Amino acid sequence: MKTKRIKDLFHNGVPDENATIQGWLRTKRELKEFTFIEVNDGSSLKNLQVILDKTISNYEETIVRLNTGSSVEVSGTLATSPGKNQNIELKATTIKIYGDSNPETYPLQKKRHSFEFLRTIGHLRNRTNTLGAVMRIRNSCAMAIHKFFQEKGFMLIHTPIITVNDCEGAGDLFKVTNFDLSNIPRNEKGNTEYTQDFFGKPAYLTVSGQLEAEVMAMAFQNVYTFGPTFRAENSNTSRHLAEFWMVEPEMAFCDLEGNQDVAEEFLKYVFKSVLQSCPEDMEFFNKYIDSTVLETAEKITNKKFERITYTNAINLLENSNKLFEYAVEWGIDLQAEHERYLAEEVFKSPVIVTNYPTVTKAFYMRLNDDQKTVAAMDILFPKIGEIIGGSQREERLDILEERLQAQNIITEDLSWYLDLRRYGTVPHSGFGLGFERMVQFMTGVKNIREVIPFPRTPLNAEF
Amino acid sequence: MKTKRIKDLFHNGVPDENATIQGWLRTKRELKEFTFIEVNDGSSLKNLQVILDKTISNYEETIVRLNTGSSVEVSGTLATSPGKNQNIELKATTIKIYGDSNPETYPLQKKRHSFEFLRTIGHLRNRTNTLGAVMRIRNSCAMAIHKFFQEKGFMLIHTPIITVNDCEGAGDLFKVTNFDLSNIPRNEKGNTEYTQDFFGKPAYLTVSGQLEAEVMAMAFQNVYTFGPTFRAENSNTSRHLAEFWMVEPEMAFCDLEGNQDVAEEFLKYVFKSVLQSCPEDMEFFNKYIDSTVLETAEKITNKKFERITYTNAINLLENSNKLFEYAVEWGIDLQAEHERYLAEEVFKSPVIVTNYPTVTKAFYMRLNDDQKTVAAMDILFPKIGEIIGGSQREERLDILEERLQAQNIITEDLSWYLDLRRYGTVPHSGFGLGFERMVQFMTGVKNIREVIPFPRTPLNAEF
Repeated sequence: MKTKRIKDLFHNGVPDENATIQGWLRTKRELKEFTFIEVNDGSSLKNLQVILDKTISNYEETIVRLNTGSSVEVSGTLATSPGKNQNIELKATTIKIYGDSNPETYPLQKKRHSFEFLRTIGHLRNRTNTLGAVMRIRNSCAMAIHKFFQEKGFMLIHTPIITVNDCEGAGDLFKVTNFDLSNIPRNEKGNTEYTQDFFGKPAYLTVSGQLEAEVMAMAFQNVYTFGPTFRAENSNTSRHLAEFWMVEPEMAFCDLEGNQDVAEEFLKYVFKSVLQSCPEDMEFFNKYIDSTVLETAEKITNKKFERITYTNAINLLENSNKLFEYAVEWGIDLQAEHERYLAEEVFKSPVIVTNYPTVTKAFYMRLNDDQKTVAAMDILFPKIGEIIGGSQREERLDILEERLQAQNIITEDLSWYLDLRRYGTVPHSGFGLGFERMVQFMTGVKNIREVIPFPRTPLNAEF
Repeated sequence: MKTKRIKDLFHNGVPDENATIQGWLRTKRELKEFTFIEVNDGSSLKNLQVILDKTISNYEETIVRLNTGSSVEVSGTLATSPGKNQNIELKATTIKIYGDSNPETYPLQKKRHSFEFLRTIGHLRNRTNTLGAVMRIRNSCAMAIHKFFQEKGFMLIHTPIITVNDCEGAGDLFKVTNFDLSNIPRNEKGNTEYTQDFFGKPAYLTVSGQLEAEVMAMAFQNVYTFGPTFRAENSNTSRHLAEFWMVEPEMAFCDLEGNQDVAEEFLKYVFKSVLQSCPEDMEFFNKYIDSTVLETAEKITNKKFERITYTNAINLLENSNKLFEYAVEWGIDLQAEHERYLAEEVFKSPVIVTNYPTVTKAFYMRLNDDQKTVAAMDILFPKIGEIIGGSQREERLDILEERLQAQNIITEDLSWYLDLRRYGTVPHSGFGLGFERMVQFMTGVKNIREVIPFPRTPLNAEF
């Protein structure tokens, strides 16, 4: 007996006289002669309606045991349904219950639960419509990312999670240790004796795979990472996670212009791909979560992104009659309010802002000829702000060394990184995409904790 | 000007009157009237031969600067080569050097370097033939894994890296903390005050995503993880890494038989896919690293795996006339020598051994009716031993609770895991594949540190 997925049943259509499905009961409606149940197997948002009647040998004893959450296997004939909203239904000939579900204690009864409550039952919340749809979109989005890069000849690389580099300054780092925390070895001066730790020196969880991706790009030209990254920031917001997944392509022989081209093509490709592969789930979000997600996604796939320099962006902001919380002047870090104004009000479209002031950006970004700006780019989306940050990297050894000194970074620790500029250096560029931010934006879900299966945030690493 | 990848030039063939490539010089051979250089761009094992001659305006000044490791851009006409072993070559009309490479200091000169030496220059070693081929196979292998599961309707899920579960007992756990290690908060009893740490309790790096994958399988039926996992074991061997990538599918409504079927189909699919997509790289390994890798890979894709119970395996071992270092009797953990004897000498094929003694296996494996064994499976490969370990999971609440108690695991910490058995429990199964072990096996490379870009091992987390 080969079981079928409910998604495929809806897709293949009727009649199918030999259909067997396995899944979990969502609702039950008992009538005199029949019982209707709706079964979901996670393959689609839609449940499959199943009709049980008294010709089934174990009908009576089964019906009383069926509850929301019960696991079942049903065989029968798939036919057109006379009921409204149900194009097909399964007329059962046999049903088997694998596991019961006590309605007195099962937390997921048929009603709308708050996301906050659902987070407390993270091991069950994926059985709801919303979380189910999020996870299917997440899967589809991840696959579209791989497909885009592979089709363009990029190599997937796994950059390290544990690192001894602490020089990126992208925020607080989690420490990784094998020490017994209640008994940390000290040297005679009372300092931690790291030579006795697993890696022989202080080790951390990575905040970015970029520096290592640059290593790989200098051998394979075009590469990308897709892995977890970490921030030990105490940020309890709807946009921050302590553990999240990043996508970081890195391209040799590529300048800032090429970087923008790839990033725009990439975003368009991924949105288009998800719209095509998950139309039902996307409609669900548009209907119940955020009524603009479909229109926004269509716009992103179809409209050319605006491109503007930081300096011009500052001019636009200064000449707007808008009152911003943070005052605008050349040299500031653009704040979310500024970014959203540009994307939502000025351009009504995604915008790529380039060439930011040197002082606001990391050491590895390429210094422009004006000496005041670096070849950075941020892609700003309406409503969300920055979705991608990237840059052309500084490929000139002498200038890179000056930048490191100016930021008081010990160049010895990065001698391997400098070697990339010593031997066969090339112009190169890359960018980073926060994967959960993308899923959040795509689905319109307000809190980032809903778009990752098991969110890690301050004081929370449950399940 | 659109540049082309060298792999595509070899694939598309000649003539191409307008070819531009970018890459790194591997060798240079100066003749009176010409200079031959070989350029590699990471897309293929093969270098592209380029002919430079005096019609190029900057010929003289360029030739003297060209060294192994220099980065170049060359344009010209691709034509059939008269030389032996070279089916095509690029007759250059222009050449540009992006970055020099000082032959006095560049560590990768044209000679064979030991893998040990190459590890010390992990930021440059990917520019060698062997590491280049490994990384292309690694990429191909990763994509085949995604493709297999996606085609079968499995959902990719990201299980957490940071976890507060310490109950899997799969070896030593790395600790993750935000504490200043030189000043750890203590309570009045002198114990570590974990409530002040980032997650409010002791946190670790995951050793497996399985328990969380079970959560997801109970909503989406078939899921798989592909993520990093960690062991803080002080094992300095050619088969151990402190950080490595695992693939862990988990299937609801699937028993041990189904689990074996999927695992076998999976391995065959991935090997076949890599043989097809990387024939040159595979031939390279067969020629220079291990002359059996092609034959072995072919066997795996074509031959039905043997299936045998642990009890029968013990009988076979006992009745062999072989002297083993570890004595054979029912109840022992099979050692590498036993596994290899079965796969290499008895069956000369991959073997799936099932139903191991309960005492040797983890709490979550399903207890068989004989009460002495659990529904575990290990897939043993010739030469390498175990490549996959898996099991049917214990889906019965009462028996699972007994197993946990017997192993002194506090069930409160796993109440969420037990809930999966309380609400709609189903038979389910899964397995784990060590990704680097697979790449190691496929390529025949002896040390696992060569098959991951940046290996993490005791006292080593460089780059």
